[in-house]
Amino acid sequence: MPKISDRGLKMPSSPIRKLVPFADAAKKRGTKIYHLNIGQPDIKTPAAALKAVSESELDIIAYSPSEGYEWYRDKIAEYYGRIGVGIDASDIIVTSGASEAIQFVMNSCFDAGDEIIVPEPFYANYNGFSKTGNVIVKPITASIDDGFGLPPMSDFEKEITSKTKAILICNPSNPTGYLYSKEELEVLKEIVLKHDLFLMVDEVYREFVYDEREHTSVLSLEGLEEHAIVFDSVSKRYSACGARIGMIISRNREMITTALKFAQARLSPPTLGQIMGAAMVDVPQTFIEESITEYDKRRKVCIERLQKMDGVVCPRPGGAFYLFVKLPVDDTEKFCKWLLEDFNFNGETVMLAPGAGFYSTSGLGRQEARIAYVLNTGALHKAMDCLEAALKSYPGKI
Amino acid sequence: MPKISDRGLKMPSSPIRKLVPFADAAKKRGTKIYHLNIGQPDIKTPAAALKAVSESELDIIAYSPSEGYEWYRDKIAEYYGRIGVGIDASDIIVTSGASEAIQFVMNSCFDAGDEIIVPEPFYANYNGFSKTGNVIVKPITASIDDGFGLPPMSDFEKEITSKTKAILICNPSNPTGYLYSKEELEVLKEIVLKHDLFLMVDEVYREFVYDEREHTSVLSLEGLEEHAIVFDSVSKRYSACGARIGMIISRNREMITTALKFAQARLSPPTLGQIMGAAMVDVPQTFIEESITEYDKRRKVCIERLQKMDGVVCPRPGGAFYLFVKLPVDDTEKFCKWLLEDFNFNGETVMLAPGAGFYSTSGLGRQEARIAYVLNTGALHKAMDCLEAALKSYPGKI
Repeated sequence: MPKISDRGLKMPSSPIRKLVPFADAAKKRGTKIYHLNIGQPDIKTPAAALKAVSESELDIIAYSPSEGYEWYRDKIAEYYGRIGVGIDASDIIVTSGASEAIQFVMNSCFDAGDEIIVPEPFYANYNGFSKTGNVIVKPITASIDDGFGLPPMSDFEKEITSKTKAILICNPSNPTGYLYSKEELEVLKEIVLKHDLFLMVDEVYREFVYDEREHTSVLSLEGLEEHAIVFDSVSKRYSACGARIGMIISRNREMITTALKFAQARLSPPTLGQIMGAAMVDVPQTFIEESITEYDKRRKVCIERLQKMDGVVCPRPGGAFYLFVKLPVDDTEKFCKWLLEDFNFNGETVMLAPGAGFYSTSGLGRQEARIAYVLNTGALHKAMDCLEAALKSYPGKI
Repeated sequence: MPKISDRGLKMPSSPIRKLVPFADAAKKRGTKIYHLNIGQPDIKTPAAALKAVSESELDIIAYSPSEGYEWYRDKIAEYYGRIGVGIDASDIIVTSGASEAIQFVMNSCFDAGDEIIVPEPFYANYNGFSKTGNVIVKPITASIDDGFGLPPMSDFEKEITSKTKAILICNPSNPTGYLYSKEELEVLKEIVLKHDLFLMVDEVYREFVYDEREHTSVLSLEGLEEHAIVFDSVSKRYSACGARIGMIISRNREMITTALKFAQARLSPPTLGQIMGAAMVDVPQTFIEESITEYDKRRKVCIERLQKMDGVVCPRPGGAFYLFVKLPVDDTEKFCKWLLEDFNFNGETVMLAPGAGFYSTSGLGRQEARIAYVLNTGALHKAMDCLEAALKSYPGKI
């Protein structure tokens, strides 16, 4: 039998997917599960976006240009203009989700063995994309004690070598919800200019900010035109994860030209998704405002409930729809599995994402877990009831 | 300014896209171009597939499972049952086009420096995907003299080393249209079993066969269960290239499990495309039969016209919708550019894909070009008029 590759063997499994068989078994036993483990919003996709597809008069679903339709890239530029970022269609490549955007940029900016610095905990799939591209992740550990804020500049300086090509952050962060301030971005700017690095920012949660705070796009920082690369997506903003429409945005012409070669090899991003995406730009801002109001309610319910639980540490992050919490348990992988296998509270349980999978440094995050507040407040209260009861009866409680 | 990677610099540009600026300039001058350069069918997507999307009652365009919806994979298995191949949903991973399928399989089966043997001329993007994954393409040259049939077994044996992991063919072939016979597949079977290699077959043009011939899927060969991997797609079969729905099919459980890890990292294939894809399986076979009848008419027009042109060599391939021809010119890259820049016949011209881009061996294919017969017979006659006139007046004629 022919052998699969070492690359394949070493590719990490998704930390969230590992629990899926246990969740399936629990469902078969009739247990109701509150899914706080994945970032799949329950908000309805804007009706106008769905209508744009059903009313489209396309009779051939043809390839689009590899960089995306120009009319769609013009609409994206219009959206960016509204958030105060001046770009045009030529600064944009439309991709199959932000996932593909990250891969094209990794291929364009890194050779095998090159290094990328990422504050951890970070979005687990950055690991997978790095492994695929033979890129080495150099983590810098952020601390729950300051809510996972930007580690000090000296921590970055320590990790920079001749192989370092970029710093990557997610702002606001998946998995911590942390919203990096303009001042923190200025610190990163100083580092990348000093060492001539790319500054890659995953801004897919850009619109989801709370407590009257404001999001600063890295694209709005002056002097970073050649260094800044943004990953964006319609998935979370418009609750359309399955549209598979993401994008690379950068004013670095050489990088865009290079990424386009990878884009051409795979021919085109989805045509129907681009029709939806263009319609989304015309969706009134009230759609997003209502989403934010709803997520903020949920955020407050979760934070309030979690902060009342004995031994739980729950920071109050400024963005996204995630909380990254510390639980009084031996190991959240075991705990999350136990929640599905051995626990129920009135026939219900809750599914969380264990924290270790979001760290690159082995041994970290064992007491932490990510909570995605993607259910309505009624369901969240019940999920918190489950968690509260579980923490009281879990045998590995510490 | 931060530097892009060597990987990015070395990534080949699409041989077809290079001509696009010249085509754009010709259009601006008012020249009408017959596009025989890309495999974008002009056949209408089945109305039932478009209707399935517009009548879908989804109100959240959510992620699908990373391997694709089970109901869609069941429909794919139903389609395969109809062509005599017994597989089930667990043998299938749905991807964003066959392009993504090829990349997941390359990552799963090859480490950096491993080798893949591919008869040339081959689909140009195999080069790009190989470069991306640091896989070395070992070409085996097929000859126009026997219509680009399978090179002798000894040619393969000569290229096999300890680094060889797979043989890849496209059947029927893009770019040559060559339909590999069952006997030729049996030869490949013997080689891969002897050397324990994967046999990867891109079967996206499977349905397009002519002259009463039959296509043999590699999945129907006994004894190859662990070795055979098929790339498939709805793009050409149902004229839905922009749906971005491809798939990996294999009974090799370890390979599927490994490829799934790469699929999980990118979350999911397009949701709307899967709705279209499932509806396509129920489209009456008459849709495909009518497509084949139409393509066959076009094929005959092109072959008849080309074989009458002085100095042109045009084999009569059994499948796909491509012809790979030899032209009496110095260099088809120059000729194709000249067709766009310096030539017109009553205000019209034709765009072809130069042959060299489909070869991995440098220097080959300079007199060859790929013709995609994706226009109606009236347009094809006019395109052939242009080509005939051009070959008479081209200064580099030999």
